[in-house]
Amino acid sequence: MTVVNPVQAPFDRAICDGLAACGVATVHEAQGRTGLLASHMRPIFAGASIAGPAVTVSVPPADNWMIHVAVEQCRSGDVLVVSPTSPSDAGYFGELLACSLAARGVVGLVIEAGCRDIAALTAMGFPVWSRAVSAQGTVKETLGSVNVPLVCAGQLVRPGDVVVADDDGVVVVPRAHAKLVLRASHEREHRERAVRERLKAGELGLDIYGMRQRLQEKGLIYSTGCRSATEPET
Amino acid sequence: MTVVNPVQAPFDRAICDGLAACGVATVHEAQGRTGLLASHMRPIFAGASIAGPAVTVSVPPADNWMIHVAVEQCRSGDVLVVSPTSPSDAGYFGELLACSLAARGVVGLVIEAGCRDIAALTAMGFPVWSRAVSAQGTVKETLGSVNVPLVCAGQLVRPGDVVVADDDGVVVVPRAHAKLVLRASHEREHRERAVRERLKAGELGLDIYGMRQRLQEKGLIYSTGCRSATEPET
Amino acid sequence: MTVVNPVQAPFDRAICDGLAACGVATVHEAQGRTGLLASHMRPIFAGASIAGPAVTVSVPPADNWMIHVAVEQCRSGDVLVVSPTSPSDAGYFGELLACSLAARGVVGLVIEAGCRDIAALTAMGFPVWSRAVSAQGTVKETLGSVNVPLVCAGQLVRPGDVVVADDDGVVVVPRAHAKLVLRASHEREHRERAVRERLKAGELGLDIYGMRQRLQEKGLIYSTGCRSATEPET
Amino acid sequence: MTVVNPVQAPFDRAICDGLAACGVATVHEAQGRTGLLASHMRPIFAGASIAGPAVTVSVPPADNWMIHVAVEQCRSGDVLVVSPTSPSDAGYFGELLACSLAARGVVGLVIEAGCRDIAALTAMGFPVWSRAVSAQGTVKETLGSVNVPLVCAGQLVRPGDVVVADDDGVVVVPRAHAKLVLRASHEREHRERAVRERLKAGELGLDIYGMRQRLQEKGLIYSTGCRSATEPET
Amino acid sequence: MTVVNPVQAPFDRAICDGLAACGVATVHEAQGRTGLLASHMRPIFAGASIAGPAVTVSVPPADNWMIHVAVEQCRSGDVLVVSPTSPSDAGYFGELLACSLAARGVVGLVIEAGCRDIAALTAMGFPVWSRAVSAQGTVKETLGSVNVPLVCAGQLVRPGDVVVADDDGVVVVPRAHAKLVLRASHEREHRERAVRERLKAGELGLDIYGMRQRLQEKGLIYSTGCRSATEPET
Amino acid sequence: MTVVNPVQAPFDRAICDGLAACGVATVHEAQGRTGLLASHMRPIFAGASIAGPAVTVSVPPADNWMIHVAVEQCRSGDVLVVSPTSPSDAGYFGELLACSLAARGVVGLVIEAGCRDIAALTAMGFPVWSRAVSAQGTVKETLGSVNVPLVCAGQLVRPGDVVVADDDGVVVVPRAHAKLVLRASHEREHRERAVRERLKAGELGLDIYGMRQRLQEKGLIYSTGCRSATEPET
Repeated sequence: MTVVNPVQAPFDRAICDGLAACGVATVHEAQGRTGLLASHMRPIFAGASIAGPAVTVSVPPADNWMIHVAVEQCRSGDVLVVSPTSPSDAGYFGELLACSLAARGVVGLVIEAGCRDIAALTAMGFPVWSRAVSAQGTVKETLGSVNVPLVCAGQLVRPGDVVVADDDGVVVVPRAHAKLVLRASHEREHRERAVRERLKAGELGLDIYGMRQRLQEKGLIYSTGCRSATEPET
Repeated sequence: MTVVNPVQAPFDRAICDGLAACGVATVHEAQGRTGLLASHMRPIFAGASIAGPAVTVSVPPADNWMIHVAVEQCRSGDVLVVSPTSPSDAGYFGELLACSLAARGVVGLVIEAGCRDIAALTAMGFPVWSRAVSAQGTVKETLGSVNVPLVCAGQLVRPGDVVVADDDGVVVVPRAHAKLVLRASHEREHRERAVRERLKAGELGLDIYGMRQRLQEKGLIYSTGCRSATEPET
Repeated sequence: MTVVNPVQAPFDRAICDGLAACGVATVHEAQGRTGLLASHMRPIFAGASIAGPAVTVSVPPADNWMIHVAVEQCRSGDVLVVSPTSPSDAGYFGELLACSLAARGVVGLVIEAGCRDIAALTAMGFPVWSRAVSAQGTVKETLGSVNVPLVCAGQLVRPGDVVVADDDGVVVVPRAHAKLVLRASHEREHRERAVRERLKAGELGLDIYGMRQRLQEKGLIYSTGCRSATEPET
Repeated sequence: MTVVNPVQAPFDRAICDGLAACGVATVHEAQGRTGLLASHMRPIFAGASIAGPAVTVSVPPADNWMIHVAVEQCRSGDVLVVSPTSPSDAGYFGELLACSLAARGVVGLVIEAGCRDIAALTAMGFPVWSRAVSAQGTVKETLGSVNVPLVCAGQLVRPGDVVVADDDGVVVVPRAHAKLVLRASHEREHRERAVRERLKAGELGLDIYGMRQRLQEKGLIYSTGCRSATEPET
Repeated sequence: MTVVNPVQAPFDRAICDGLAACGVATVHEAQGRTGLLASHMRPIFAGASIAGPAVTVSVPPADNWMIHVAVEQCRSGDVLVVSPTSPSDAGYFGELLACSLAARGVVGLVIEAGCRDIAALTAMGFPVWSRAVSAQGTVKETLGSVNVPLVCAGQLVRPGDVVVADDDGVVVVPRAHAKLVLRASHEREHRERAVRERLKAGELGLDIYGMRQRLQEKGLIYSTGCRSATEPET
Repeated sequence: MTVVNPVQAPFDRAICDGLAACGVATVHEAQGRTGLLASHMRPIFAGASIAGPAVTVSVPPADNWMIHVAVEQCRSGDVLVVSPTSPSDAGYFGELLACSLAARGVVGLVIEAGCRDIAALTAMGFPVWSRAVSAQGTVKETLGSVNVPLVCAGQLVRPGDVVVADDDGVVVVPRAHAKLVLRASHEREHRERAVRERLKAGELGLDIYGMRQRLQEKGLIYSTGCRSATEPET
C-alpha cells in the first residue's frame, strides 16, 4: 500500500506564474468556487505568493520519514503538499528540509500539520502554509506514499494539480483545468479592474451592478422613520 | 423583516479620535469592562487603530448582498459592522468593497465572518477585524437589514454606537455614553501615566497601590523555607 | 494554601543565553522531546527569543492580583510563567505590568491566558507568549501562589526551571538538566551545521542519513507506471 | 453598576407551554429565524423541553455569587439565564442550586459556562443547557447584576423574554412577540402536519412544494450519462 | 456546473449488511486504515449501525434546496451524504426530510453541517451523523449537485461508494473494494474472536502477540528500583 | 529514556470506593479545587463512577504499543491513565484491550486521545474518559514509558495517585493526600446534606449562608423602579 509514484510530465511555468499573480481569491472564483483548502491553513509569514504543480505526500501521524523520500521526487517549481492520515499538529517540517527543498527549486510547502524553525524559514524566505506551529519533533518509523491522490484540509489534491497559495489561503486547481482557469482569472481581473476604478471614484456597487431593481423585487424596504428603527423591538 | 434604516445624526469626530487614541483596553476599562467583542476577532494586519459610529449590517450566511446596500448608507468616519445570522467563515469582504468604502471615508470594517484579499487590503491600509481569513466567495440571493441592532461576536451593537478597534481587539461604546467614556478614559490615562513612570523607576505596584496590608489580611504567607516550597507534594 | 516561596539560587546566565541561541526546536529535541508547551501558546510579535529561570504564578481565573505579588520576587534574567487554576482568556497582563517587569530585568512572560496592550508591548519590545489576546480586565480579589510547581499549557513547570521561548513556541528545561541540555543542543547544532551545507549543495537526506536500505526493507515500492498512480483507486 | 432589578409582571403560562410543545426549531422558524443561541449550548441530558420567562444573571468570570442572589427573584415557571462577562467554563451550577431553584418552581437553566453534578441533576430531572461540563468550582467575591439585558451565546436576552429550550438548542422570544410567535408556530405546525403525511406516503417534496419549474429556470441539469458523472474530472 | 447525475447500478445488499455488522472500526482496519471521516462527525443518538451506497449532495452554505432534489434519486438501502461547499453549521436537515427519506427506504444521513428535530428523529429511529446540532434554518435559493464526487469531513466520497456508520463514526469504502473489504473484515473478526477469548481468560497481549522480544530489542527497560521511578526528575 | 517502573505498593480499596461515592465535584472541592483534568475529557457513556490508583502510560503519538506493556503492570482496582507526548486523537483503545484490562480487574481508562468500539465498551460496561471518539487505528513501532509522572489533560498524574472519574469529569488526588481528602469530602457531604434539605424546603441560600450583609457592604442595589431597569441603556 506504500508507494512512490513518478512525478507528472513537466508543467507550463507561465501558467503557474500567471495563477500566482492572480492570487487565491481570484483563482478560486474563476474555477467556480471550488478547491479552497480549509481556512485553518495559514502562512507562517505574510506576503508570500506561489503556484506550482503538487508533489503529494501521505504521511503517518507524527512521522516525517516520507517527506525525505518525497524531496528526491521534486523538481524546480513544484509545491510539496503533505497530509497526515490521522490528525496531527506535530512539527513535521523545519529548516533542514527547507534547505533541501530550496536547493531543488521547490517554491513552497502546504502541510495540514505543524511546522517549526519559523524564524529561520522566514529569514530564508521559504513559505509554508500549515495548520499549526509546533516544535514537537516526529519519528521516522512508518512508511507512507508519495504522489498519490490525497485529501488535504478538506480538498482532494492529485499529483500534478496546481496549488496556488498566498495570504488568503490555499486553492488547488485540477491540472487539466489550469489553462482555462488562468484565462477565466484574467477575464475576472479585467472586469474587476474597470469596476475598481469606478468604485474608487465613488460610484456605488448598487449602480454598477444594477442591483436596485432586484432588491426592490425581493422586498427590501428603505425606512424613513428614524428613531423606531434603531430601537430594540418592544 | 428586511429593512434599511437611515443613519443616525452625525457624531462628534473629536470624540471618536480621542477614543481611538486611548485604545481598546483603556476604553473598555473606562466604561466598566463592558462592550468587548470576543477575542476571536483579530486584525488582518498589526498597527491599525480606529474609532467611529457603527453602520450595522445583518447578513444571511454566506451572502454579502446587503454589504453592497450598506455602502450607500455610510458617511465619512463610519465603521461598518457586519454579523451573519448563522455562523459563517465565508469571505464576505475583499478589495473591491474596500475601495468602495474607502472612497466614502469609512475607516474600517468589523465582521464576524471571513475576509479575503489580505495582501491588497494591507497594501491600501484598510483595516479589518474578522474571525477568519477565507477566500471562499459569497452569493447575492437573500436580503438582510442595515442599521438594525445586532449581536456581533457576543456584544450588542446598535447603529450609531461608537466602535473602537486596535491590536487588542474591538470594543463598542453606546453612543449616549461616548463623551463620558472618553473623559473617563483620559482620567485613566492620566493616572496610568504617573504610575508608569514610578514603575519604570523600579517602584513596586505592591507599594504604589498599597496592596501589602490587604494581602496580609487575606492570609498570604511568605514562606522562608527554600527547598520544600519547590518540591512537588508527597 | 496560598504562599509566596522564595526564588531559587541564582542561575548561570551563560547557560540561559546559550539555550536561547539554540532555540526551542533544538532544545526540545536535545532533551528527548519533552517539555514542550501546547502549540496554542503564541508570541504576540515575531522575532523574540529568550531563556531564563521561571518565576511561577498560580492565579485564580480572571484575577491578576498575584502577578503584582510575583513582580517583587523577580530578578534580572527571570521569565515569569503564569497559569490560571481554571481556564480563562481574560487579559491578565498589559503595558504597566510590563514596565514594572522590564525595570527589574525580567526577559519575558509566558501566560496560559490573555494579554493586552499589544501595540505598546511591541513598541517596548517586551515579549509575551499567550493563548489569547484580550482587552478584558481582571480583578484583584483572590489569592494564589508564587513559586510553586504548576502546569502551564500541558507541561509541569517548577520554580527555577529554565524556560526557552521563540517563534516556535515555549519549552521548559528542568533546572538540574539545563547544562546537559545545552551541551546536547550544541552537539545537535554541530551535526546539523554539516548536514545543512550538504543539503544546500543539493545532496539528498536519503543519502546523507543512509535511509535507502531501511526504506527498502520496510517495503517501499517505487512505481514506474505513470498513469495509474495518479488515478483514484477503482 | 451592579443591580438587582425586579422581575417582570407575570406572564401567560399557556403561551409558554404552547411554545415548549412546538419546540425550538419551529419557534425559531416562526419568528423569522431570529433569536437562536449558538449551537455550543447543549443539554446535559436528552429529552427535556421547557419554556418560560427569563430571569437573567450577569456574572463575573468564575464567580457564582449572583446566582444565589437571583434565586430569590425567581417565580414558578421561570427560566434562569446566566452569562459571564468574560468567557469561562467553570462549573457555576450544581445540585444544591438546582434543589433551590426546583423548590421555587424554576423549570430550567441556560448558562454560557460550565455545569456540574450531572448525575444528580439527571436523576432529579432538572434540565440545564450549558457550553461545558466542569467540576471546577467558583468563588463568591464579586458582584454582578440580576434582571438586566445581557448577551448569552450570541443573542440578546432581556428579563422577561421567553426562553424555549429542547434537544435542538435554545431560542429566545421577545416577550412582546410571544403570543404572535406562538400563533405563527401553530400555523407552521398545521402546515407541516399535512406535508408530513404526504411525505410519509412517498410523495416528493419537489412536487408538494412545486419546486421543479424553478429548478429548471435556475439551470439544473439532469445528466443521463452514467459513468462520466461519477468519475473525478480529468 | 450544477448537475444531477443518475444513481449507480444497484449494489449487493448482503455486502452492506455484512459491513454494518462488522462496524466502522473493523472495516476501517480491514481496508488499510483509510476512508475514516473526521472525528467531529457524531451520531445524534447512540446505538445506530448502518451501511449502504452513497447518494452524494454538494450543497451551498446554509441552503438545503438540493437535498430535496436528492431525495428523488434515493433508493431503498441508500445512505445520503451531504457536504457544503463552505463550512456551515446551519440545520439543513430535520424531521420532514427524514420522513421523506424513510418513506424511500434510505437508512441514514451523513452531513458535515447541522441537523435539527433531534427528539423527533430519535423517536422515529432515523440515524444522522453530523458535525453540529442546530435549529438554524436554511434557504432554498442556490443550486448544487447530486451524485458528484465530494469531500466530506476530510474524505473523498464518490456516488455509490459504501458508507458505514455507527457509534465510532463514519467510514467510506470504495464501491469496487466493498466485497474484498468485507472479506478482510470477516477475517479480522475471526482472528479477534480467538484473541478475545484468550484475553478474557487473563492471557496477556504481550504473549499472544509475541511482543516481548521486539520490546527488548528496541531497548525497553524494566526498572526494579521503586522510589526513583515515581519521583520527578531532578 | 523508555522505562517500565514497578507499580506502587497496594492502596486501601475502601478509600478509593469512598472517593468514587463522593464524586468528582466533591473531591475536587475537598482538596482545594486542584487536580481537575480539562473539561474536554468526557465519558463515552453516562452513569459510570470510578476511583483507583493510577498506572500511567506515556505514549508516542498514534502508537499504542505501550498500552499492551502497561496491561501486565495493572492490578485489580487500578485506573489506567494514558497521555500521548504530542497531541493525537487517534483511537488508541478498543474492545480487545478492554477485555484484557477487565480480566485483570482494572476499573476504567482515562486517555487524552481517541477511543473506539464505543458500542462494545458500553455493552460490557467498561468506562472510558477520552478527548475524542475515533476509529483511527494506531501502530506499534515506538516505545514509551509506564509508571512515570506525566501530564494528562493539563494535570500532573504520578503513578499511584488516585484518579476519580464520573459524569462530571476526572480529578487526580495525590496518593499521600487521599485519606485526608476523603475525610474532607465526607465533611463536605455532611454539610451539604443539611443544606440540601433546607433548600428543598424553600429556604434561600442567601439566608442559609448569611450572605445578605456582605452583599450590602459590597454595594449591591435592589432597584425598585421597574421599567427603566429592563430597558437597554440609551
